[in-house]
Amino acid sequence: MESEMNTILTFTDFGTTGPYLGQMEAAIKRESAAASVIHLQSDAPVCNPKSAGYLLAALANQFDEAVFLCVVDPGVGSERRPLVVESQGQWFVGPDNGLFAPLFHQREELNLYRILQQPRGDSQTFHGRDLFASIAAKITDKQYIAMDSVSKLEVGVEWGEDLHEIIYVDHFGNLFTGLRGWQIQRSARVHIAGRELSWAPRFDAVTQGEAFWYINSCGLVEIAVNGGRADLLFPEYRNESINIS
Amino acid sequence: MESEMNTILTFTDFGTTGPYLGQMEAAIKRESAAASVIHLQSDAPVCNPKSAGYLLAALANQFDEAVFLCVVDPGVGSERRPLVVESQGQWFVGPDNGLFAPLFHQREELNLYRILQQPRGDSQTFHGRDLFASIAAKITDKQYIAMDSVSKLEVGVEWGEDLHEIIYVDHFGNLFTGLRGWQIQRSARVHIAGRELSWAPRFDAVTQGEAFWYINSCGLVEIAVNGGRADLLFPEYRNESINIS
Amino acid sequence: MESEMNTILTFTDFGTTGPYLGQMEAAIKRESAAASVIHLQSDAPVCNPKSAGYLLAALANQFDEAVFLCVVDPGVGSERRPLVVESQGQWFVGPDNGLFAPLFHQREELNLYRILQQPRGDSQTFHGRDLFASIAAKITDKQYIAMDSVSKLEVGVEWGEDLHEIIYVDHFGNLFTGLRGWQIQRSARVHIAGRELSWAPRFDAVTQGEAFWYINSCGLVEIAVNGGRADLLFPEYRNESINIS
Repeated sequence: MESEMNTILTFTDFGTTGPYLGQMEAAIKRESAAASVIHLQSDAPVCNPKSAGYLLAALANQFDEAVFLCVVDPGVGSERRPLVVESQGQWFVGPDNGLFAPLFHQREELNLYRILQQPRGDSQTFHGRDLFASIAAKITDKQYIAMDSVSKLEVGVEWGEDLHEIIYVDHFGNLFTGLRGWQIQRSARVHIAGRELSWAPRFDAVTQGEAFWYINSCGLVEIAVNGGRADLLFPEYRNESINIS
Repeated sequence: MESEMNTILTFTDFGTTGPYLGQMEAAIKRESAAASVIHLQSDAPVCNPKSAGYLLAALANQFDEAVFLCVVDPGVGSERRPLVVESQGQWFVGPDNGLFAPLFHQREELNLYRILQQPRGDSQTFHGRDLFASIAAKITDKQYIAMDSVSKLEVGVEWGEDLHEIIYVDHFGNLFTGLRGWQIQRSARVHIAGRELSWAPRFDAVTQGEAFWYINSCGLVEIAVNGGRADLLFPEYRNESINIS
Repeated sequence: MESEMNTILTFTDFGTTGPYLGQMEAAIKRESAAASVIHLQSDAPVCNPKSAGYLLAALANQFDEAVFLCVVDPGVGSERRPLVVESQGQWFVGPDNGLFAPLFHQREELNLYRILQQPRGDSQTFHGRDLFASIAAKITDKQYIAMDSVSKLEVGVEWGEDLHEIIYVDHFGNLFTGLRGWQIQRSARVHIAGRELSWAPRFDAVTQGEAFWYINSCGLVEIAVNGGRADLLFPEYRNESINIS
């Protein structure tokens, strides 16, 4: 567990291409030679802190102690607050634009802090590199960080504990919902696009080409197709709300 | 060489996007703080252990001692065996679904073991994170692993030593075949899509736009075009068998 | 700063898929167990050392001491020289095909060396793995490297200090020019596709959907759209020259 606190898990919408991820990783290494970096997810929903927030909350539940460096930040450079969130031995660093709202709703114990440190350098648009990387590195090193305790998120508090939408489509075409699986009975039906899907424990438990729902490896309700792609079977998935009965 | 045994090389069809690669890497780090991870290839042919297996065997031949964590596993959660393969100082961890069949055929000395350890956690569909990551980390740490010696692969033993098909298309549009280059004379012709291609040592040895075959940096016969993309020149490459004369 | 010299920053056109990046990283680790690797950018303009060179020069300016392993090399295997470039405490390793020309023009102090070491292995087409990785690792380890001092680049010396073109499009559709921002007054207009764009400090300083120019996090003049994609607004960006008035 000690070792996990030396690891910074990044969660961003930077994409796997371009220089941004590498620049942020280098900024971490400059601040802390002992920190190691794992790119947990680099294709979080682009400029969409709401969907990304439910995905982040689900992913974080799969870890024990860890430091998460989270940047899905369409408003970088504007006045939204830079935050540190501490909960259950986990630390999250990122903007107050709704990205941490699902965590805020889902966890009973959660502490919010506003970062007082100023970004490094002249750029006003890359807080991931110029501010948040430094803060995450300091947390792994147990260095002092100038911050104020705050009591409430500025953005996203009106969102609920779960989101009845598709929040992410993976490489295999599986549809992640924003619904935590442990809350739902396996006898439940999941409704999408006028179809009603039953639960199955895994892909090969249904026939080839059949759609089903199951609890994915992040703990979320996921819509999948055995040997196929759910995103192709439900092409309107972005506009669908997901209902349970 | 010692240092290479601390490095786990991942070979998966997870894609470079999504959380899967990062979750698996974090699971390795939890088990062994000393292990370092290199993502050797993350876009192995999706759900295609046959093509992926020939690619893996070719890649592995470029290394000395190493630990490979290999997941191309459409049947995860079903009854295929979890395996450890040891050969020539190299260790491979992954499912018995054909992924290791080319290694089995190409190498004279090879030991097969069935992993007895159970996956961690409730998920039935992410053995890369919940089982294989832990086993690979234990191998790098020289920890004890509960496993039985087995004598034969369950899947894929009917495949030959080489595969006369295109098994992978790289970022530049080059077509990898499943044929090991050292077995083929440089005077040979490679037949694809009714065309007959001659050997050249490298790209600029033929004229601009000309197709040729050569032995690529993985040791495989590859079909390429100087200053162009072979995948566009041979759009039906997926359905072609590759003949040599 | 010491720690940065143990880190090798890769800059390639390999793409994030395929085995090339992993093979090169493994070759570094074989040579130097102490080296750590950050993939700074893996989607540099494919086979385009000119655009890639201006991007590299801009990225490098964001770092202090560092070792850059740079491979955008359509002519690998031909007779272009393998180079080491030293400048301002930074080291660059890669081919003499124009990739280092922008650095050469932009920096007053710069030393050029021709690498005398031969590539490892039989492959004639993967110097990133078989030659440059080893050289970069030796630099981080302060090992001896056989090389000759040279006085001039073979390729690209006719290019200027800046490039009035779009050199890169990022994940968000932003258009990077080859113009260094500190040379241009903020009152200047940037001309692209018959349009004249004004400066803004950041995205939310203009109205939704409005195009503007600003100095991006690499220090380059960038064309962007608030809440939109500049690559879609200016679809002919590849053929445009960028003028300033």
